[in-house]
This record gives sequence, structure tokens and C-alpha cells, in this order.
Amino acid sequence: MQQQPASSVSRRDLLSLIGTVAGSAAMYHAMTSLGFATESAYKGPIKLNGDPKGASVLILGAGLAGMTAAFELRKAGYKVEVLEFNDRPGGRNWTLRGGDTFTELGGAKQTCEFENGLYINPGPWRIPYHHHAVLDYCKRFGVALEPFIQLNHNALLHSTNGFDGQPQRIREVKTDFQGQVSELLAKATQQGKLDDAVSKEDKEILLQALKAWGALDANYAYKANLISGDFRGFARDPGGGLGAAPTPGIPLALSDILKSQLWRNLQNFALYEFQTTMFQPVGGMDMIGKAFAKEVGSLIKYNAKVIRIQQNERGVTVTYQDGNGPAAPQQAKADWCICTIPLPVLSQIETDVGARLKAAIDAVPYAASIKVGLQFKRRFWEEDEAIYGGISYTNLPIRQISYPSTAYNHSGRGVLLGAYLYGGPNSYEFTAMTPRQRVEHAVEYGSRLHPQYKAEFENGISVAWHRVPFTLGCAASWNDKMRQEHYDNLCQMDGRIVLAGEHASYLPAWMEGAILSSLDAISRLHERVVKA
Amino acid sequence: MQQQPASSVSRRDLLSLIGTVAGSAAMYHAMTSLGFATESAYKGPIKLNGDPKGASVLILGAGLAGMTAAFELRKAGYKVEVLEFNDRPGGRNWTLRGGDTFTELGGAKQTCEFENGLYINPGPWRIPYHHHAVLDYCKRFGVALEPFIQLNHNALLHSTNGFDGQPQRIREVKTDFQGQVSELLAKATQQGKLDDAVSKEDKEILLQALKAWGALDANYAYKANLISGDFRGFARDPGGGLGAAPTPGIPLALSDILKSQLWRNLQNFALYEFQTTMFQPVGGMDMIGKAFAKEVGSLIKYNAKVIRIQQNERGVTVTYQDGNGPAAPQQAKADWCICTIPLPVLSQIETDVGARLKAAIDAVPYAASIKVGLQFKRRFWEEDEAIYGGISYTNLPIRQISYPSTAYNHSGRGVLLGAYLYGGPNSYEFTAMTPRQRVEHAVEYGSRLHPQYKAEFENGISVAWHRVPFTLGCAASWNDKMRQEHYDNLCQMDGRIVLAGEHASYLPAWMEGAILSSLDAISRLHERVVKA
Repeated sequence: MQQQPASSVSRRDLLSLIGTVAGSAAMYHAMTSLGFATESAYKGPIKLNGDPKGASVLILGAGLAGMTAAFELRKAGYKVEVLEFNDRPGGRNWTLRGGDTFTELGGAKQTCEFENGLYINPGPWRIPYHHHAVLDYCKRFGVALEPFIQLNHNALLHSTNGFDGQPQRIREVKTDFQGQVSELLAKATQQGKLDDAVSKEDKEILLQALKAWGALDANYAYKANLISGDFRGFARDPGGGLGAAPTPGIPLALSDILKSQLWRNLQNFALYEFQTTMFQPVGGMDMIGKAFAKEVGSLIKYNAKVIRIQQNERGVTVTYQDGNGPAAPQQAKADWCICTIPLPVLSQIETDVGARLKAAIDAVPYAASIKVGLQFKRRFWEEDEAIYGGISYTNLPIRQISYPSTAYNHSGRGVLLGAYLYGGPNSYEFTAMTPRQRVEHAVEYGSRLHPQYKAEFENGISVAWHRVPFTLGCAASWNDKMRQEHYDNLCQMDGRIVLAGEHASYLPAWMEGAILSSLDAISRLHERVVKA
Repeated sequence: MQQQPASSVSRRDLLSLIGTVAGSAAMYHAMTSLGFATESAYKGPIKLNGDPKGASVLILGAGLAGMTAAFELRKAGYKVEVLEFNDRPGGRNWTLRGGDTFTELGGAKQTCEFENGLYINPGPWRIPYHHHAVLDYCKRFGVALEPFIQLNHNALLHSTNGFDGQPQRIREVKTDFQGQVSELLAKATQQGKLDDAVSKEDKEILLQALKAWGALDANYAYKANLISGDFRGFARDPGGGLGAAPTPGIPLALSDILKSQLWRNLQNFALYEFQTTMFQPVGGMDMIGKAFAKEVGSLIKYNAKVIRIQQNERGVTVTYQDGNGPAAPQQAKADWCICTIPLPVLSQIETDVGARLKAAIDAVPYAASIKVGLQFKRRFWEEDEAIYGGISYTNLPIRQISYPSTAYNHSGRGVLLGAYLYGGPNSYEFTAMTPRQRVEHAVEYGSRLHPQYKAEFENGISVAWHRVPFTLGCAASWNDKMRQEHYDNLCQMDGRIVLAGEHASYLPAWMEGAILSSLDAISRLHERVVKA
């Protein structure tokens, strides 16, 4: 299970040969005996060998893609300049704290009223353990991480179509579904109904496995007892001293779980993208952007709104409005350009690129997404309900309530994520609302999961990504057909310009996609420069 | 889902009535509409109303049970004295750090050589979210908590009986088992084999649910593709820029998973006791014991080895060897006694109690358990294998390797838990070894999961609980028959003496059991005092 530092290509070729000649079982054995592990798209700190001979690069955007490029290219000997629309680094790597202001398209301005130390991350908010590039930059730049809790067994699943609209505990839905599914399969197995699919030898072990996996009793039945209680929890927990024996609760009927559709939410927690162990930076996601800016901040010109991108065989000229400077447009020039401007913005900027890249820029829609942060007088989700971190899911338009993965068990105020919509009609509805209406709706809907909301609510803030001036959407929303038609065109260098960002990756909306895309883009750019 | 502060007994009675009269479905509806949630065995800070009129209590043992009693009884107006065997508070609530020494039965003395800041918890090491008493004392005493990662999808499952002894990733075993079990059930459902068990209406939803739950394709098959890859991970992860598409890996065959018995480990993570969100104190488990000692430390006499416990109708007299005082035995007297001495030690102390309590004290065996902490030059489990926290399971005698749930992504040295045996023949074997042998065995066995062990190992320390002088075993090992015969007798007051500790609870080995047992014991003692 070690990382294999060398020869992974030849091993891969060998495996491919074994697979072709001897079939997948042999290939599997070869894989394990060769110590084959997941191959990451990140190969460790990038090495840009060769002298760029004084070449200059203009980087558009000081998000993670842009700052990664700035950091690595300067290190490799390039002259680097970065133009950034906002008055801060990070782009979507962004945290809202008390005192921060934000003006969305349409002019609505919000001032965050959170208590000192509380925050929400309107953009990225979690880091999977396999996002090796993000983790490596965090390590190199000293960004402290703490676990982000995605699955909390004691959080809630809620549907207006089941259980009379009463929220259920994840541990109960999960255990009861798994138990009753296991019971069905165990009984079918016992009755010989799977004899064509399972060997006699495996059958006995399968029954044992289903008993363990499903918390079944000696007769392969899933029931209200201490066996299921050991997984789903109890009506009365075990205690100490006299009269302390636990009392099992009553399982939810499979038929009710099926009709409620609550099972739809269970697999979110198992997705590779959301599996344990996930992380968040201590203190807010923008600790990453700030750490990058500590390295490359001196290269960044803030409040620079790009309005024209030109190139010819000698270089690139970018025209921009300098928010801190004169009214007249300014120009920046360089030999090369890394453009990380989000596509909905870029597609509105006149840009000298070929038809295929232009088509790709125009083709990819951006997801509508909304987050709402809500501050409450006390952390009632912990104090009243023993929900420490994690996410509750609902079919209400708010979709999710996420509890803070930090400051557990503290007294005093808390901020939770009161809504996180991503795509779908409700997203457009929420985008159309005023910031205040979004917050009001989040409180109203959320109170159906947590009646404490109304008494404890203090203030809130919302970000609807289609109204965010620097992106005009949350993240690239690719589908397979689009990928086939446009992805390579989007990533290919066009003359002296190459695009980077989460949109130019197979990890859309993830910081890892932005960084990997940037590393790939600068590798190719550097190769061209060195070979020139 | 709110906690119901009042009237839970009458609601429970009502529910019981509904259940009897109208059946479980009606009872379930009543439960939800009454807002019924899990009833905790902890009801919030204890209230000991009434004047103890100067009564005195002698507490034996300054573990969590003893210190809870000391804290609450002093607060209620009692005169309190605590006798403690060790030269520190906490008992099994214990952390070993660099410079700490420990001498086990037989005389072998170890000095912990860990680097500053690194530690292991030989006793309790994690706190479930539903251990309300522990969490409440942590809150009241300001003990900072951080998540303890139990399930890490990228940690390993290992068996010498499967996959040629090669460790497998939890995410792969879990997804592939769940996927192929779902496929079996989906096919049986499609073929009408479950028509007697599942209604026609549910059947269609069940198929949808199995598809989602099992990561099945459109034909209800579990295969090597991006659908299963989204859960089990990939042979090659998605990346950014050109050539960045992910490649699925090859699932493990169900038959191989069944024969390997690796499925036995999967449900550990789902147990109510081990579910997310679990906690550990920042800096080591003994932060809890130290926090208690900050409150009641002045009441504790350390190095006091109890050798005789006497009582009559007027009071209790305890004779002890004072390790800091004269050679002659000393005596302490009080009106009442809370005895938290672990049963294997207590059963060897002459104690004036009735036959039923004496039988209970002698009846309960204590589990053999061993932990081994290993320091390595670098955190290779993170650096090479992207395992951040969590537990790998193996059928080797070490049973578990647990990676630290703190200081993620840091450079430099790290300490992991290299073995955690609990019961079974291997525990006795490890107990019989010298501390050095235990460490050597942990390194040898562990290297089969992590070949890096041998090059990176620096030093280790081990605690075999049957050789720990102050407990002579890890924790009470009850079975149902024993409970029936002895549990109530163990908990009942015997004259002026009452026992407390994890052994007097339905949560053996857990700190919560110790505290709840103590709260129950002092409630009954106080009631007697006030009524007297």
C-alpha cells in the first residue's frame, strides 16, 4: 500500500498486459502483489526544470489556480504579474466573518453581523483526504487543518413525504434500511432462491455476513432488540448503577423508509468525495487563500477588472479598469497569459482566441448555488440534540443544514449553514430573492427540522452564486457530451494563452481541480517556453 | 427532536399503553408526534437537595467515578476525603507522554521516550456523542474536545486469510460488499423471488434504493465503472487539465470478500458506541482527569494503598499504607464510603460487606487488554498512504492500528497506536510478554500492513492491563448471566458502603459508565443521609 515513487508506468503497462491476456482476476492478483495503489493526479511539488530566460507571464485572477501559477512560475524564474477583480485574494476561496461586507449583482449589500470567531465559507468548505495538491500546499504553507464532519449519525434526515414530516435520525434510517435489506436477502438465501448466483460454500458465509452487517438476530430477522440497538441506538440509553439497563427502540418499517425516499440521502456520506477523513482549515477556508497571498501577494494588483484580452505572435496585452487608479483603462503586457477568469465572466470579455476555445468558453454553464449562514444565540443543535457537526438533509428547498465542525461543546453563540442549494429549480428561486428573503426562508424551512430556530435566531447572510460579480455562477457544470466536445479545447493552449481553474478539470467546484488544472497548464506553458 | 425536559415518565407510560392496545405502528406514530427522542441516562447536572448536616464521606479511588463523587458531594455540603493508590489523579483516565514512567506487576519499568507533544492513552481514548455526562463535565470544566476519527475510508482491512495477505482499503471492501449484496437482492427482486415479502408498490422503490445504495448500473449490476468509482475510489483519480479523466478500479469479488472475513470489521464503525461524531480531549485523555483534579485535588491523598475496609452502624474505617508517610498503616474514618476500587483489587482487600455484595465483587472477571504506542520518524501513514486518523483492522494479534486524530498533515514524528487487544487468547499471550517484546511484536506484525514500519520506527511503550497494579485488568467483563445474578447486588448500598465505577454500570470500560454509576450511587447515598 505504499506509494510507488518510480516505475508506475511500466507497472501499469504490465498490468494492462496481464489483464488482456489472463483476465481481470489475474490482473487483480498482479495489482495487489505489485503493491498497486490509487494513482493520484498530483505527483508532489511541481518541478519546472529549464530556464525561462526572463519570460513574463500575466495571470488573470488571484484565486487558487492563479496564485498556484504565480507561486510556481515565479519560483521557476518567470516575471509574474497577477490581475484580480476583487480587493482580496482567494476568489471563491472565501470566508465571511463579522464586519465583512458583500455586494451582489443588483446592488444588494450585506454586512455580516456574526460574533467574533464565527464564520461561514460561501464557496468551498471541505477538503477530501485524496485532494493531495490542496493538502500539500496546506502543509508547505503551514495551514492548520481540522476534521470536517460530513456524516454525523445523530443528524437528521427529513422529508415532507414520510414519517408525517417528522425528521428521523440518520443512525436509525441507515441501520433500519440496512437491517431489513439484509433480512430480505438472508431469507431469500436460506430459501435457496439465490442458489444460481451464490455457491454453496459462499452461501453459509454470506448468511453470517448478512447477520453481522444487518444486525440480524439468530433467525436472520431484524427486530427491536439490543442487537439492532447496538447500531441504531436505544429508546433509553444504557446507564450506571441501579435500573440502568438499556431499552431498544422500535425500528422504522422498510416500507415507510422506501416511501419517504430518505434512503436517497444515505449514500451522500459514502461518496469518495465526502468520505472520512475530510478536512477544513482551522478558522475558515480563506486561510488557504491567505496563505497563498502571503507568498505571492506582492505580485497581485487588486480591483483590476479585465475588459479585453489581446494576443499576437509576440505577446499578450490585457486591458483592465483599475479600481484604485485612473478612470481610463490600463494595460498590462507579458509574453504569456494564464487566464483563470470564470467562464461566465470570460465569455463576456472580448478575447483573441481561436474558434474552438471560444466555443468551449461559451459552452459550459455554471451551477446555481446558494449558501445561507445563520447565527443563533446558542448551539442548540449540540445542547438539545447532541448533534456535533455533520449535515442534516431535507427535501425542503434549503436541502441541507450543516452544523459547525469546530468549537464543539462550547457555550454561547454559534453559526450553522442554514441552506446549501446546488442546482435545481429551487436554486433559481433562491437566487431571485433578496438576501433578506433568503435568510427568512432558511429560518422558516429550518424550523421544521429544528423548532428552536425561531427563538434562537439572531442574524444571517447569504451568497447566491449567480449574483456574485466575480464568477456569475458557482462552478462549471459539465456533462459528458460537453466534455467530449469542449474539454480538451478548453484546456489546450491557444497561442500565448492557456486557461486554468476548476472549470478546466475533472474536479469541478473543488479547489483541487483549480490547483491541478493550474499545475497542468503551467507545465505545458513552461515546456513551450523552454523549448522555444 | 428536542429534549423533553419534563413529564417523560408519563409520556413513556402513555406510549406503552398505546403500544399494548394499538400495536407498534400506532406506538411509533405516537412517539414521533410526541417528540420522543432517545432518553439519556444523564439528566444534566445532579441536584442533591437537602442538608447532609455535616456528614462525612470517604471516597476510595480518584478515578473519574471517585472524583465525580468528591466534586458533587462536597458541593452538596459533605466533608470529603479521597484515598488514591497512584501518585496522580485519573486512574485509567491516563495519558503517557515523553518522560513518564510506569512500572507494571513483575517490576518491569518503562520510561516513555516520545517526543514532546506526542502521547498515547492507555485507557479510554474516545468519547461517543451520546455520553452526555462526560461531555457535560468537559463543558463545565473547560476541557477542549476534537473529533476522534473511528472510520477512515482510506484505512486498511487486513486478513492473513484473504487477498494473499495484502491489506485492502476500507472504502473498497465496504463499497464492493454493499454493491454486490445490493446486486444479488435487486436481481432476486426483479425475478419475482421476493414477491411474498415485498409489496408491488414497494418493489419498484426498493429497486431504485438498491441501485443508489449499491452503486449499481442501469441494469442493477455492480461493475468496474465510474458509478462504483464514485464510492470506492479510482485506479487513477480525476485530475485537472489535459488527460485528466479518472480510471475506475476493479472491484473485489464478493466471494473473495466473504472468504477473507474482512466484512467482520465493517460494522465496528457503525456501532452506536463508535459512530460519528466521537471526540477526544485536545492533548490527551488525561485532560479530563486533570480538570477534575483541579476542582477536587485538595481532597485527594495520593499513594494511599487501601488494605482493610471496616464498617459498623456508626461509620466506616479504612486502613491504608501511606506511601508518603510512616511505615505503619494509617486509618481514615468517615460516616459513609464510596468505593470505586476496581473489583480485582477490591476482592483481595478484606472488606466488611454482606455475602451478596462480596459474591458480586468476586464474580466479575476483568478483560485482558493491551495497548502499544509506537513512535515513528515521520507520519508515513499520512505522507505515503493518505491515512489521516482512523483505524485499520487485522486478524493479526495486534488487531488494530489507530492513527492519531490530531496534528494532521504535520511534518515530523508521529505516534500511533500499534496494537489494541481486548480479550481473547492473544491478550494473555501479550500480557505474558515483557514490555519490550510487546513493542517488538507490534512492530513486526504492523509491518505487514505498513512496510515502512521497520525503517521508521523509533521507540514504543506498552500497557498490559492485567499487569497494571491499580486495576489488575482493563474493565469489568459482564455477561448476561452474571448481570442477572450479581449486578443489582453490586450496586446496592451495603450498610454505609456503596460501590461505583464502570464496573457498576451498563457501560463497562467507558468513562460515562464510571460517572453515571457514581451519580447514581451518590444520589442513593444522599437520599439515605437526608432521610436519616
